[in-house]
Amino acid sequence: MEELLFKARTLTEALPWIKAACGKIAVIKYGGSAMTDAALRESVAQDIVLMKLVGLNPVIVHGGGPYIDDYMGRLGMEVEFVDGLRVTDDATMELVKMVLVGNVNKTLVAAINRHGKFAIGVSGDDANLLTAEPISERLGRVGRVKRVDTSVLMRLVDDGFIPVIASVGVGEEGGSYNINADTVAGEVAAALGSEKVIFLTDVDGLYRDVEDPSSLISSLALGQAREILESDALSSGMIPKVQACVEALDAGVRRAHVLNGAVEHALLLEVFTDEGVGTMITHTGEGG
Amino acid sequence: MEELLFKARTLTEALPWIKAACGKIAVIKYGGSAMTDAALRESVAQDIVLMKLVGLNPVIVHGGGPYIDDYMGRLGMEVEFVDGLRVTDDATMELVKMVLVGNVNKTLVAAINRHGKFAIGVSGDDANLLTAEPISERLGRVGRVKRVDTSVLMRLVDDGFIPVIASVGVGEEGGSYNINADTVAGEVAAALGSEKVIFLTDVDGLYRDVEDPSSLISSLALGQAREILESDALSSGMIPKVQACVEALDAGVRRAHVLNGAVEHALLLEVFTDEGVGTMITHTGEGG
Amino acid sequence: MEELLFKARTLTEALPWIKAACGKIAVIKYGGSAMTDAALRESVAQDIVLMKLVGLNPVIVHGGGPYIDDYMGRLGMEVEFVDGLRVTDDATMELVKMVLVGNVNKTLVAAINRHGKFAIGVSGDDANLLTAEPISERLGRVGRVKRVDTSVLMRLVDDGFIPVIASVGVGEEGGSYNINADTVAGEVAAALGSEKVIFLTDVDGLYRDVEDPSSLISSLALGQAREILESDALSSGMIPKVQACVEALDAGVRRAHVLNGAVEHALLLEVFTDEGVGTMITHTGEGG
Amino acid sequence: MEELLFKARTLTEALPWIKAACGKIAVIKYGGSAMTDAALRESVAQDIVLMKLVGLNPVIVHGGGPYIDDYMGRLGMEVEFVDGLRVTDDATMELVKMVLVGNVNKTLVAAINRHGKFAIGVSGDDANLLTAEPISERLGRVGRVKRVDTSVLMRLVDDGFIPVIASVGVGEEGGSYNINADTVAGEVAAALGSEKVIFLTDVDGLYRDVEDPSSLISSLALGQAREILESDALSSGMIPKVQACVEALDAGVRRAHVLNGAVEHALLLEVFTDEGVGTMITHTGEGG
Amino acid sequence: MEELLFKARTLTEALPWIKAACGKIAVIKYGGSAMTDAALRESVAQDIVLMKLVGLNPVIVHGGGPYIDDYMGRLGMEVEFVDGLRVTDDATMELVKMVLVGNVNKTLVAAINRHGKFAIGVSGDDANLLTAEPISERLGRVGRVKRVDTSVLMRLVDDGFIPVIASVGVGEEGGSYNINADTVAGEVAAALGSEKVIFLTDVDGLYRDVEDPSSLISSLALGQAREILESDALSSGMIPKVQACVEALDAGVRRAHVLNGAVEHALLLEVFTDEGVGTMITHTGEGG
Amino acid sequence: MEELLFKARTLTEALPWIKAACGKIAVIKYGGSAMTDAALRESVAQDIVLMKLVGLNPVIVHGGGPYIDDYMGRLGMEVEFVDGLRVTDDATMELVKMVLVGNVNKTLVAAINRHGKFAIGVSGDDANLLTAEPISERLGRVGRVKRVDTSVLMRLVDDGFIPVIASVGVGEEGGSYNINADTVAGEVAAALGSEKVIFLTDVDGLYRDVEDPSSLISSLALGQAREILESDALSSGMIPKVQACVEALDAGVRRAHVLNGAVEHALLLEVFTDEGVGTMITHTGEGG
Repeated sequence: MEELLFKARTLTEALPWIKAACGKIAVIKYGGSAMTDAALRESVAQDIVLMKLVGLNPVIVHGGGPYIDDYMGRLGMEVEFVDGLRVTDDATMELVKMVLVGNVNKTLVAAINRHGKFAIGVSGDDANLLTAEPISERLGRVGRVKRVDTSVLMRLVDDGFIPVIASVGVGEEGGSYNINADTVAGEVAAALGSEKVIFLTDVDGLYRDVEDPSSLISSLALGQAREILESDALSSGMIPKVQACVEALDAGVRRAHVLNGAVEHALLLEVFTDEGVGTMITHTGEGG
Repeated sequence: MEELLFKARTLTEALPWIKAACGKIAVIKYGGSAMTDAALRESVAQDIVLMKLVGLNPVIVHGGGPYIDDYMGRLGMEVEFVDGLRVTDDATMELVKMVLVGNVNKTLVAAINRHGKFAIGVSGDDANLLTAEPISERLGRVGRVKRVDTSVLMRLVDDGFIPVIASVGVGEEGGSYNINADTVAGEVAAALGSEKVIFLTDVDGLYRDVEDPSSLISSLALGQAREILESDALSSGMIPKVQACVEALDAGVRRAHVLNGAVEHALLLEVFTDEGVGTMITHTGEGG
Repeated sequence: MEELLFKARTLTEALPWIKAACGKIAVIKYGGSAMTDAALRESVAQDIVLMKLVGLNPVIVHGGGPYIDDYMGRLGMEVEFVDGLRVTDDATMELVKMVLVGNVNKTLVAAINRHGKFAIGVSGDDANLLTAEPISERLGRVGRVKRVDTSVLMRLVDDGFIPVIASVGVGEEGGSYNINADTVAGEVAAALGSEKVIFLTDVDGLYRDVEDPSSLISSLALGQAREILESDALSSGMIPKVQACVEALDAGVRRAHVLNGAVEHALLLEVFTDEGVGTMITHTGEGG
Repeated sequence: MEELLFKARTLTEALPWIKAACGKIAVIKYGGSAMTDAALRESVAQDIVLMKLVGLNPVIVHGGGPYIDDYMGRLGMEVEFVDGLRVTDDATMELVKMVLVGNVNKTLVAAINRHGKFAIGVSGDDANLLTAEPISERLGRVGRVKRVDTSVLMRLVDDGFIPVIASVGVGEEGGSYNINADTVAGEVAAALGSEKVIFLTDVDGLYRDVEDPSSLISSLALGQAREILESDALSSGMIPKVQACVEALDAGVRRAHVLNGAVEHALLLEVFTDEGVGTMITHTGEGG
Repeated sequence: MEELLFKARTLTEALPWIKAACGKIAVIKYGGSAMTDAALRESVAQDIVLMKLVGLNPVIVHGGGPYIDDYMGRLGMEVEFVDGLRVTDDATMELVKMVLVGNVNKTLVAAINRHGKFAIGVSGDDANLLTAEPISERLGRVGRVKRVDTSVLMRLVDDGFIPVIASVGVGEEGGSYNINADTVAGEVAAALGSEKVIFLTDVDGLYRDVEDPSSLISSLALGQAREILESDALSSGMIPKVQACVEALDAGVRRAHVLNGAVEHALLLEVFTDEGVGTMITHTGEGG
Repeated sequence: MEELLFKARTLTEALPWIKAACGKIAVIKYGGSAMTDAALRESVAQDIVLMKLVGLNPVIVHGGGPYIDDYMGRLGMEVEFVDGLRVTDDATMELVKMVLVGNVNKTLVAAINRHGKFAIGVSGDDANLLTAEPISERLGRVGRVKRVDTSVLMRLVDDGFIPVIASVGVGEEGGSYNINADTVAGEVAAALGSEKVIFLTDVDGLYRDVEDPSSLISSLALGQAREILESDALSSGMIPKVQACVEALDAGVRRAHVLNGAVEHALLLEVFTDEGVGTMITHTGEGG
C-alpha cells in the first residue's frame, strides 16, 4: 500500500510537467554510453516514447564517434587529427556516413520502434534538411551547419513521428559533411524554437570544481555558463556541449540540460519529476 | 537515489498503459466520498486531468443523492420512496436539477478547471443529449435512458474538453427526468463505444463473501458477474453498478471497473499501474 | 390573396437584414417577463432558433433575480442589500448558482431545444469562460467580470450551437461570484466582437420623459446615451442596461437594443423588419 | 401593431420550413413571364437569394424560346418545326447558344448578383456538365440529356454560389445540342438528389378541367400525375413539365411544384409559408 | 534512336521551367488567328491543358472583335467608331455579350474540355468578377475595369479548373460594359499576382524597326517598353498590348510575353523550352 | 524552326500520358548501371523529379549488391553463397545495412535533391515500414517481406516527397533482414495499389530468344510472362524481376516495365512518349 501511494504520488508529481510540456519540442542529443550500451539504449528508447505519448515531442540528434574509429581501424584507414578534429577525406566521409546513417541511426530507430511505429531516421541529405559548409580546407569534409530546413521535421512531428537525425550535412555544391553532433543539436533546437535541448553524456553534469564530485551544479544562469566556457574549467568533450547550450539559449530555447545518460531513465526523471538530475542552464538560472 | 529509481520505474510502468489508452474513452461514474470529500475530489480531479493529458479521454457522469436529501429537508419537502426509488413530483424534480446541474456538476467542473480549461458541464437538456422516458406513473419524474446523442459529447472530446454529465434526462414531450447515474454511466459508455467504464464507489470492489474482507475479487468474467447479480450476494447500492457494468460489456465496452474512490488516486493506480486496485470485469475475466 | 401578398412582402423585407446578419453574432440578454412567462419564453425560443437558422448567431446571457428571492424565502435565508446589491455569503452563492445554472438556464435551453439540438447551457466555471473578481469585501461573493475567454463560445457557435450563459463567474482563487447579467451581456458582446447586443426587458425602451409614454426614443447616438446615464432620467433597473450598452459600443459592438420582451416576437421584429421596435443605440444614432 | 403581429407570425410560420430546408437543394426551372418581365425577374431574383441565405440551395435551369425566335427573325433565318420541335442546323445552334448563354443566362445572373456575388452562369460546355446526344437526324442539333456531371455544380453550391444553367448540352463527339429546359431541370434535380424541383410557368398549376379555373389541383400523387400525362388533359406546353416532374420523382426527388411565375414572390410563398401556391406533386400526394 | 534522344532532351529541358512554374498563375490573352482558325485553337487548347497538368495554372481572357462585326453586319446594325473605339449603344452591347459570352467563350471552353473537364467560362457578371465604369458618355457602353474580384477565380483555379473570361464588365449601377480584352488581361494578371501574362497575337513580337523583320526583339526591360510606348513605333493594335504589359509589370507581374499565336504551340515553346519565341518584357530585361 | 516543331510535338505527345498519370503512383526499382554510373544516376534523378512535378508520384526501391561485395572484400569478410543467395550472418547484415542505407540510399537521395527538397530515404526500420521474416535458418539474415506498412509512404507522397526505400526489413523479434530488392519493389507496388512498377536493369528488356537481339519483346500479357518464367528462357538475374512483375500484376498493379537503365532517360521515354522502350507486361498484353 505504501508502495502504491508512492506510485500515485510519482504520477501526480508528473502532472504539472506534462501540462507544461504539452505540444512542445525537446531536442535530445543522444550519445555516450546510452549509445553504446544496449540496455541503456533500451531505457532511453522507452523514455523517448513516453515523452512522445504524453505530448512532449522529442527530436533526436546523434553522431557516432566510437563506431567510426572501429571501422576505420578494420579497414586499415589512417586517422589524422588537427586541433582535435578528424581530418576527413572523401573515403572517410563515405565511411562516416555509412556508420552514422546506416548503423547508429537505424539501431536507435529500431529500438524506439519496438514500442510502435514512431521513429523515422533522417540525415542532412533527406529533403536537404541540414545544409553544411566546410570549416577549413585542411580538414576536408568537416563542416559546420549553414542552414536547418525545419519544414520536413515539423511535418514529421505533426504527423506523430519522432525524427532521429544523423549529424551529416549536405554541401551546397553537393557532397556530404561531417558535423559535430552537439552543434547540430543546438542548431536544430534553435531552428525549431524548441522548449528544451538535452545533452545525454557520461558525466553527471557540470562541476564547479572538476576534481570535486560534490561540486555538481544543479542549475546555472546563461551568463555563468558563458563565464565557465571562457575559463579553462571544462574538459574538451564538454566544451561543444556547453557551447551548444549557450547558442541554443541565445537563439530562444528556454532550457538546456546536461544529463548522465548512464543513469537509467535520466531523461524521464529530468523531464517529469520535481528534482531533475544533471545540470540545467536557463536564462536566469532559476527554472527558465 | 533509491527513490529516484522507484519513480523512474513507476513512470516506465505506465508506458504500456498509456500506449494502449491513446485516443480511447473512459467513462467515469463519479460519486461516494470522492464527491462529498473536498480533498478526495481534488485528487480525483487531478487524476482526470492526467488521464486527459496523456491521451485517455475521460467522460464523467454523476448523480447527487446526499445533496438532494439535504436541501429537501431544509425546504421541508417530504421524501417518499417506492421500491427504493424516490417518488419525484415536479417540485422535487426542479430541486433535483438545481442540485445536480447547478451544484454538484459545477463543483467538479471547477475542481478540474483549476488545472486548465478542460471541463464543460452538461445535462440531458444540453443539445438534447440524454432523452428519457418515465419508469412508471407512480414514480413521477423518475426516468430511464431512451437515447444518448453522442454527437455533442464526441465534439467536446475531440476539441480537447472533458464533458461532465449530470444524470438528468429530457423527456420527448418536454420536462425533465431523474435517472440513476450508474445506469447513465453504463449507457453513455456503451453509446460512445468507450474502452472502459469505471465506477467510483466507497467499497474496495466486489467480494466473494461480503462478510470477509479478504475475499475481494480482483478480476471477474462477464458470466460470473451475471451470476452474482442473479444471486443475493450484492448490497442494494452495488446492484445498479454491477448491472451497469454487465450492460456496458454486453454493448461492447471492454473493461468495467469498480474502485474505492476513498483511496487517494485510485483512478490513476487502476489506469496506469500494473497492479490495479478494485475489481475489474471483462468478457473473459482475464484482462479483456 | 391580400394576405399572401403581405406575407411575401414581409419575407422579402427580411432579405437585406438577413444578408447583413450573415455569420455575425448577436448577444441577447434574456430576462424580465420573457423569462418568467412560459408563453413568452416559447416565443423568444422560436425567435432565437430562427435567427440561428438564417445565419445570425445568437449567444444568450441571463441572470435570475426573482427565482433566487423565492428560494431564499422558502429556505428562510435572510436577504440583505447594500447600495442596491444583494450581500452574498457562501450559502447564498451556492443557492444563486443552483437557481441560475440548474433551473433558469436549463429551462431556456430546453425551450430552445424543442426545435432541435441547438442550445448548450454554460456558466463561468465551464472551460473557465467567465473569470470574476469581488466588488468589495462587504458584498461577499458579488463580483465583476475580469476576463471573458471566448474560445469555447466561438467553438460552440462554429459547431452550430447556441451558447446560453448563466451570469456566474469563477474566481481566480476558486469559488464563484454572482455578476450582474446586464454587465455580463455587455462584456461578452464586446469580447466576441459581436454585431449587436440586445436587452430584453419589460419596458418599451428609453423615454425622453419617463412620465410620457409618447416620448419613447427609437434611436439614439452613443453620446446621447452617455448624457442620459449621467442625468437622473433612468430607473434603477435601466441603469446597468444602458451602462452595458455604452460599454459594449465603446468596445466596438455596432448596435445596442433595448426591447420589450413582453411583446411577442419583439426580437424577430427588431432584427428582421424595417421598423424595429424599442430603442436602438449606435455610434452615430443613425443605424450604426 | 396589428401589422407587426402579422409580420411576426409570417416570420415564425417560416421557421419549420427553413429548418426542414437547411442544406438541401431546390432545382428551379426559370421561364415564362418571370423571364421576359423585368419586374418579375427582379422578384424571382430576390426570392432565390433569400432561399440561398436561409440555407435552401437553389440551382437554376433555363431555356429561352421567345428570344431565339426574335433574333432568328431579325437575321432572316427560317424557322422550321417538326413534331413541335424546332429543326436546328449548325447556324441556328450557334444563335441559340448566343441567346441562351450570352443573353438570358447573364441577365438572370446579373439580377441575382445585384444582391451580392452569388450567381455563376454555366452551360453544358462548362466542365462538360451536360452531355447530350441527338434525338433524331432530322432535327439536327436538338438533343436529349445523356449525362449530368454534378461535381462542378456541387462544388459551386458548397462554395456558396448559385449555379444558373443554360439548357445547352455538349455532344460526345463535340458540337452543341439544344435541349428542352424542362427536361434538363428534371434531370439535374434527379442527378443532384435534390429535395425539390420547381417549374415557374404562366399558369396557376394543373387543373382537373382546363376549362374550369376553380378546378386547380393543389396537391397530387405521382400515380395521378402519370394518369393525367397519359390522358389528353394537358396543354402542349405543360406536357414536358409534368413529364419532368414524374421523372424527377421517379429518380428520388421528394417534391415537384408547378407555380405561376407571374404571381410576385410565388417561389417564396410556396417554399416558406404553410399555404403554398400552385400544384405540388409528391409520391403520395400528401406532402411528400 | 537519334529521335528518341532528342525527345528525351526536350522533356528534360522542360524540367527547370516546370519546377519554376509549379503552382503559379499565367494569364493568357487569347485572340488573333488562334481564335479564328480552328486548327490553331485546338493547338492552343492542348498547350493550355498541358500547362495546367504540369502545375502552371492558366487563366484565359478573350474579346471577340471580328465575330461582332460579322453579326452586326448581318443584323444591319450600323458601326460607328470614335477614336478607334466602337460606339456601343444598348442594342450593340446585347449583341457583343451574346457573341463573346455565348459564342467565342464557349467555343474555346469546348476545345479545352475535349481533354477533360477543365475549363469554365465566365464573364464579368458571374460572381460580379469584373466591375466596370464607362469611359465617356459619347462611347456609351464602352468601359474600363474598375475592380477585379479574384475570389471566385482563385477558387476555380484551386479546384483544378481553368477560368476562361469574356471581357465584359458589370456596371455598379447594373448594365454591361464592353472592355478591351488586352486591358482586362493585364488587370486580371495584376489582381491575381500572376507570374506571367502572355498576349497571343498575329505578329512575332515587338520590332526595333517595324519595317525590318530581322529586328525582332527577344527580350526587353520595362523601361525600354515604356519608351517604345511613348514613341510612335507601335502599330495601333499593339499599343494596348504593350500598355497592358507595362501596367501588369508595374503591378508586380514578373514577365509579360507577346507571342505569335499563328505559330503552332507557340505557348508551349515559350513556357517550357529554353529558347522561347516572341518578345519577353521583364523588369530588368534579363529573365525577370 | 524544324527543331522547335519537333520539340512542340514531343511536348504535346506527352499530354495524354501526363493526363493518365495524374495523381497515380509508379514504383521504380533502381539498380544496375543507373546505380553505379554517376552520369546515368543524374539522368535517372532528373527523370524522377520530372515525373513527380507533372503529377506521377515515384516511389523508389533499391538494393546494392556490388557495393556490398566491395566492402566485404576490403574488410576481409568471407562471402558464402547457397543457392545463389548470400549467407548473411549478423556482421554481414550490419555491413549490408551500412552500405544500403548509409551509402547507396543517400547517394540517390542527394542526386534527386539537387533539384529541390523532394527525396527522403527510408529503410524497413523507419516507422516499421517493411516487416521481414527469415527465408531459412541456413541463410541467416536473408529475409522475405512479411508486411508493407504503406501509411508512412502515403503520407510522404501526399506531402510532396519522393520516398527512396532501401531493401532492408525489420524482423518481428527485432534485428534486420536483407531482402531481394526486386521482390520488395513488387510488394511495395502491390501494397500501394500503384499504377505501374518499373525495373531499371542493364538489358533492353525480355527476349523471345536470348541469343537473338532482334527478338526483344515490346509488350507481353501476364499469362505469357508466367509461361516464360516456367520455361528456362530467363537469365538468373532476370528471374526475380519477372517474378516480381507477375506478382505485382496479380495484386492489381496495371503495368510492369523492364527497362535498360543504361539508356539515358529511358524512364522518361517509357513514361511520356508513345513509343516506349523496353518490355511492358500487362494483364492483356495490350496496354493494360
